[in-house]
Amino acid sequence: MSLKVYVDRLSQPSRALLIFCKLNGIEFEEVPIDLSKGQHKSPEFEEVNPMKQVPAIAHGTFVLFESHAILRYLASAFPGVADHWYPTDLQKRAKIESVLDWHHSNLRRGSVGYIFNTILAPAFGLPTNPQAAAEGKKLLSASLATIDTFWLQKDGSFLNGNSQPSLADLSLVCEIMQLEDRDSILSPHKNVLKWIDDVKSALAPHFDEIHATLFKVKEMFEKKRSAGASS
Amino acid sequence: MSLKVYVDRLSQPSRALLIFCKLNGIEFEEVPIDLSKGQHKSPEFEEVNPMKQVPAIAHGTFVLFESHAILRYLASAFPGVADHWYPTDLQKRAKIESVLDWHHSNLRRGSVGYIFNTILAPAFGLPTNPQAAAEGKKLLSASLATIDTFWLQKDGSFLNGNSQPSLADLSLVCEIMQLEDRDSILSPHKNVLKWIDDVKSALAPHFDEIHATLFKVKEMFEKKRSAGASS
Repeated sequence: MSLKVYVDRLSQPSRALLIFCKLNGIEFEEVPIDLSKGQHKSPEFEEVNPMKQVPAIAHGTFVLFESHAILRYLASAFPGVADHWYPTDLQKRAKIESVLDWHHSNLRRGSVGYIFNTILAPAFGLPTNPQAAAEGKKLLSASLATIDTFWLQKDGSFLNGNSQPSLADLSLVCEIMQLEDRDSILSPHKNVLKWIDDVKSALAPHFDEIHATLFKVKEMFEKKRSAGASS
Repeated sequence: MSLKVYVDRLSQPSRALLIFCKLNGIEFEEVPIDLSKGQHKSPEFEEVNPMKQVPAIAHGTFVLFESHAILRYLASAFPGVADHWYPTDLQKRAKIESVLDWHHSNLRRGSVGYIFNTILAPAFGLPTNPQAAAEGKKLLSASLATIDTFWLQKDGSFLNGNSQPSLADLSLVCEIMQLEDRDSILSPHKNVLKWIDDVKSALAPHFDEIHATLFKVKEMFEKKRSAGASS
């Protein structure tokens, strides 16, 4: 049964999904949906995901959206996926679910609010909301502090003290890659910085390959900002 | 192994958890955590949930928070739970996961922003944010429209066209019960209104029993508002 994966590599949950498939030898066809060209609003894509968001998948005739739901499904439906991603042990799995659910209203929400109002809106000439940017930054910093002092407080290198990465490590680190540290958001959180490096190593070489587009775009933004600052 | 369930019946995910346990014959001890008295900030409760939020559980020495993670765990760990709540069929389960994940950034986020800024903050003398209230209401209405026209578009009475309720129906309807319809938020959504009735019937008699505290508090608020309007 064929697997189509609808993604934009500039979207953090899209990258998580691509890395997961490549790492686990899941055969798939990548269908690029360019958000900047509005391809997520096409009638063809709307048949796959009526919410008009990436990522989404079509596994044969079965369509699915919401990245965590997709990751859980792939981890369960494809036999070659190592257990540490989404353990069959109910208590280990539940602890990973707890991080995945926590993510939505904390790290993800903070990150999206902050990045939209400080980077994306100005880049696309859209109105910005400074209060929303400030609230996003506050929630983002609090979320990073929670990861630093709670989720990473145990012996293992990964979330919940695990010795190997889970779906939660993958999802959260791809979110964090969206950030730039010019505002020193990441630097106070030493456990987070070490964890990012550990996750990158565990996901090599696919981590860098899938993030290449994002890193190029970030470099371009940085050049524009530097040029603006010196003109 | 004993199961302790830490809840405040005025919290929507707490109610979902209590109803789920009662309906499925799961033996548990209810440990009330009165949010209005700040009991969620006590050192004892912080040992159960360092995030200082309800609900949380302790199953023997295993502690867990985030209501969807708890519901998934209970549905999997207790053998008497009927399959329709959290199906073992991977595609049926994935469709329910998709609703549960969607909920966080849509219905839940809209509802919390709206209710906090229009009901809770004024009641507790806290500052309100009219822009956040308006944004919450807009997201809430859009989320209800999505439930009405997408999640409920199929033949069955429940979300995803299912003929019996799942964890998603339980979680979302408990969230909606927090709303009052004085602003006609619910009334345009006829499928949602019918679905609420269907879920209530499927969860009887525990639905009304667990919601009794909320309904009393809502009645008290309504009387206060009426008295204020006529004075």
